[in-house]
Amino acid sequence: MNQKKVPADIEIAQKAEMLPITSIAEKLGLEDEDIELYGKYKAKLSYDSLKKLEERKSGKLILVTSINPTPAGEGKSTVTVGLGDALNSIGKQAMIALREPSLGPTMGVKGGAAGGGYAQVLPMEEINLHFTGDIHAITTANNALAAMVDNHIHQGNELCIDQRRIIWKRALDMNDRALRQIVIGLGGPVQGVPREDGFDITVASEIMAVLCLADGLDDLKKRLSRMVVAYDITKAPVTVQDIGAQGALAMLLKDALKPNLVQTIEHTPALIHGGPFANIAHGCNSVIATRTALKLSDYVVTESGFGADLGAEKFLNIKTEALGASPDAVVLVATVRALKMHGGQKKTDLAAENLPALEKGLENLQKHMETIGLFGVPLVIAINKFVTDTEPELAYLTNWCESNGAEVALTEVWEHGGKGGVELAEKVTAVIEKGEKSFRRLYDQNVSLEDKIRTIAYNVYGAGDVKFSSKAERQLMEVENFGWGELPVCMEKTQYSLSDDAKKLGRPKGFTIHIRELRPKIGAGFIVALTGEVMTMPGLPKKPAAYGMDVDENGNVSGLY
Amino acid sequence: MNQKKVPADIEIAQKAEMLPITSIAEKLGLEDEDIELYGKYKAKLSYDSLKKLEERKSGKLILVTSINPTPAGEGKSTVTVGLGDALNSIGKQAMIALREPSLGPTMGVKGGAAGGGYAQVLPMEEINLHFTGDIHAITTANNALAAMVDNHIHQGNELCIDQRRIIWKRALDMNDRALRQIVIGLGGPVQGVPREDGFDITVASEIMAVLCLADGLDDLKKRLSRMVVAYDITKAPVTVQDIGAQGALAMLLKDALKPNLVQTIEHTPALIHGGPFANIAHGCNSVIATRTALKLSDYVVTESGFGADLGAEKFLNIKTEALGASPDAVVLVATVRALKMHGGQKKTDLAAENLPALEKGLENLQKHMETIGLFGVPLVIAINKFVTDTEPELAYLTNWCESNGAEVALTEVWEHGGKGGVELAEKVTAVIEKGEKSFRRLYDQNVSLEDKIRTIAYNVYGAGDVKFSSKAERQLMEVENFGWGELPVCMEKTQYSLSDDAKKLGRPKGFTIHIRELRPKIGAGFIVALTGEVMTMPGLPKKPAAYGMDVDENGNVSGLY
Repeated sequence: MNQKKVPADIEIAQKAEMLPITSIAEKLGLEDEDIELYGKYKAKLSYDSLKKLEERKSGKLILVTSINPTPAGEGKSTVTVGLGDALNSIGKQAMIALREPSLGPTMGVKGGAAGGGYAQVLPMEEINLHFTGDIHAITTANNALAAMVDNHIHQGNELCIDQRRIIWKRALDMNDRALRQIVIGLGGPVQGVPREDGFDITVASEIMAVLCLADGLDDLKKRLSRMVVAYDITKAPVTVQDIGAQGALAMLLKDALKPNLVQTIEHTPALIHGGPFANIAHGCNSVIATRTALKLSDYVVTESGFGADLGAEKFLNIKTEALGASPDAVVLVATVRALKMHGGQKKTDLAAENLPALEKGLENLQKHMETIGLFGVPLVIAINKFVTDTEPELAYLTNWCESNGAEVALTEVWEHGGKGGVELAEKVTAVIEKGEKSFRRLYDQNVSLEDKIRTIAYNVYGAGDVKFSSKAERQLMEVENFGWGELPVCMEKTQYSLSDDAKKLGRPKGFTIHIRELRPKIGAGFIVALTGEVMTMPGLPKKPAAYGMDVDENGNVSGLY
Repeated sequence: MNQKKVPADIEIAQKAEMLPITSIAEKLGLEDEDIELYGKYKAKLSYDSLKKLEERKSGKLILVTSINPTPAGEGKSTVTVGLGDALNSIGKQAMIALREPSLGPTMGVKGGAAGGGYAQVLPMEEINLHFTGDIHAITTANNALAAMVDNHIHQGNELCIDQRRIIWKRALDMNDRALRQIVIGLGGPVQGVPREDGFDITVASEIMAVLCLADGLDDLKKRLSRMVVAYDITKAPVTVQDIGAQGALAMLLKDALKPNLVQTIEHTPALIHGGPFANIAHGCNSVIATRTALKLSDYVVTESGFGADLGAEKFLNIKTEALGASPDAVVLVATVRALKMHGGQKKTDLAAENLPALEKGLENLQKHMETIGLFGVPLVIAINKFVTDTEPELAYLTNWCESNGAEVALTEVWEHGGKGGVELAEKVTAVIEKGEKSFRRLYDQNVSLEDKIRTIAYNVYGAGDVKFSSKAERQLMEVENFGWGELPVCMEKTQYSLSDDAKKLGRPKGFTIHIRELRPKIGAGFIVALTGEVMTMPGLPKKPAAYGMDVDENGNVSGLY
């Protein structure tokens, strides 16, 4: 977000007047006993209230996704928030369902993640720091399981776990590269059994994906029970149930599973809950929060991680199954700047008008439009306007969309909040009212995992071929042998390109997708297919954002952007 | 706690009717805007309310401590809770200030820690699980600092940190022996710099001690700034301020520093806040909570960790300085069972009457009575009654106390709640009203660290000699050279014996205390003197308590004892 006239996010956030969260809850028809307060501006919905809501009719679901992200910035979360505000401003009853930000990146490069400008979710500092403790609970459950696995081995290893084949890693919600590859259990027999290990950032833990797909505590416990933590000396999977940890883990997660209610600057209710990785996991907020929002509102705006090739594909092929619902419209966010980068313009030249680059970059947008079409969901393109965009560029882009038969709207929610999203809100409600949705997933559950991968590679990425490493080929057989063949695939791929090569912007064609490895996430209920060297524990930059952060004697935070 | 007639702690806790925490706050004269709710039964006091309270007069402070703990159990926390209830039941206005339990041991051997029987603090499950997230915030701050230190080295090491001399360890609130000794930064240049490291349990982090001694956010930041994380290649200390992390760490702790308000089964208000180790730290709840309780109540009952030789000594020599107040009475808890163990009776024979063992074990009680006398604080002995105690044993013990000039009261708070502590409450208020306190610390700040150690060893432990290892002798000089000589000493010693040999029960004499090593905790503001191999990361037992824990579909917890 590079527009100059608007103050910093944290300044806007700190100046905004919030309503007590009890008032927001009241607007939704919730009573005092339905919510559990976390301070004055955050609340969790109780299990009783979730149960009461089950009988209600569901509202319409709007999924926000984007072209392949570029360093120019697309503003998908900002558009999600702004669209929620805009829907309310045109007299609809709307709510937002977003992911929870991870603290690790906040301390590292980028600061906070709760929208931007005048389209933000509040209280911004709380959401970006410990919030209601969900991610801490996941860290705790993740590491309790790890401790129980190593303790099991130390105490005699009845399950005959092969300590070279433990796949359950420890986790911290921190950017800490030194913990990527470690050796634990050193110091002699009293300190446990030495072995190689590593930490992931917590949002990469399978428990985060499990929490986001579970529809209640019983389902959570079943999913936790199924998680594979290691293989034994016969190479058979060892699960959480074999260890006997599922009850304790579910207990540790009992509050984390309840969705968190907050509000936008314009007092639109927002559920912020769950935030799994969009590469090694499915990258969407929780099923419980999305479902609850649908029960509480006529319209729910939600988003998925990265571009449509990763986030939307997974939302539509994976999350819809657990959710028992599918989007009534998809909003595809694009910016002139990002499209010009896809068309070959350098990041440093983005302020300069360049219609040929824009035209070429539109190939990327076009591919994603085609993909959404395959799922049978109506589409609206949101052009997220930046101050550097020229009139000819905006006109070219709008005309192109219209001449390709797509609904399109300019949005200026970053600068103007809900007012800047009225056109988008109107177009989105119009396509929903037309009722032309005919949702279908791209593959059947019972085709082979290899076929599922090929379907996505050919139809969503536009690949010409898929090659499996010998390891991946062996794993394809194992997946079938262990009875996991009917699970969906969760693709790990660079978010920057439709291909598995981050440098191929725009719309590469005829490329080969290389599947290096498979990772079973049986609790989450998918098999991850890795195309790259996935980084599940980020590092800090030379000058971490943390160096600029502070708090005064009264608890007021500064330096959190 | 082995009395048979009373149901399990969690059953009693789950059956108890809590008042809304807003009602508890109201009883204390707090208004709605003074507290920040965490659900219906937990709240934090806001910084504004803490400021408003500063003007108020302080109540009387009662410190609960005990003889050297034995496996027989003394019930110090239970007596603390029960005494608070009893004071209210006799018409006094009283409050309790306790430590927060750590989750690691809860998952391991012992289950919860919030009193017992009918003298418990509620909501028991919440307090024993994530509570209000304080310990998670400390874990996060601890590990953010560790990540920044390793990142500093990875990014060029401008401060010339000697990576063999990094003393800042990572932390998890978990019993996980495999993390005691680890090697991090493996995998080549991109993953950081390999070095030896280890994890402590979070309550052993210096940040926990800092949080418990800070009197506000500014002081917290100053203390964090002073913490030593490593030594550079010239062997000079490298502090948090050198790294530049103090602002971010204080920000991460801004809510954790606010005291947590809960209630007992009998609705006595309780502040539960902070819980540092009682060996490598000072083992008391936070200064902020104790001070706040004193402003809110006529009587505040608090406790310190382990026996009087460790907990009370540190409370009186260290915490009173930061608190700016000292106890008006000390309650010394003893049980017939534990005294018999100190007198040589085996744990398996404790149900059998044994007056000679009791008589011999009383030496241990006598030493602690003498120690409290040195500090000039009035004393009441609380005999915490167990069903196996015989009448002759109880009579013998009571007579012995009285003939030694001590106030003594039988308590049955575990079985009867506040009603069981009326005699104790009356004796305690009576000694306070007499006003015979003449509090003094055992040493002056400006004597050498060696003299401080010798003073405690001779006067509190009854040692005949103190021997310093050559390492400790070198460190004594370093402490003076770095300008830390005026700090108090924080002794690390086994809690089971007055000596540094856990097997010497009763009242050993003429023994030598061996100082192996010193550890500077400059943020906390003390130098730890280690007499043993201190364990700062516990392990799980063969069958962790976690295996029996569960939660049902409605969020009800079981198996948490």
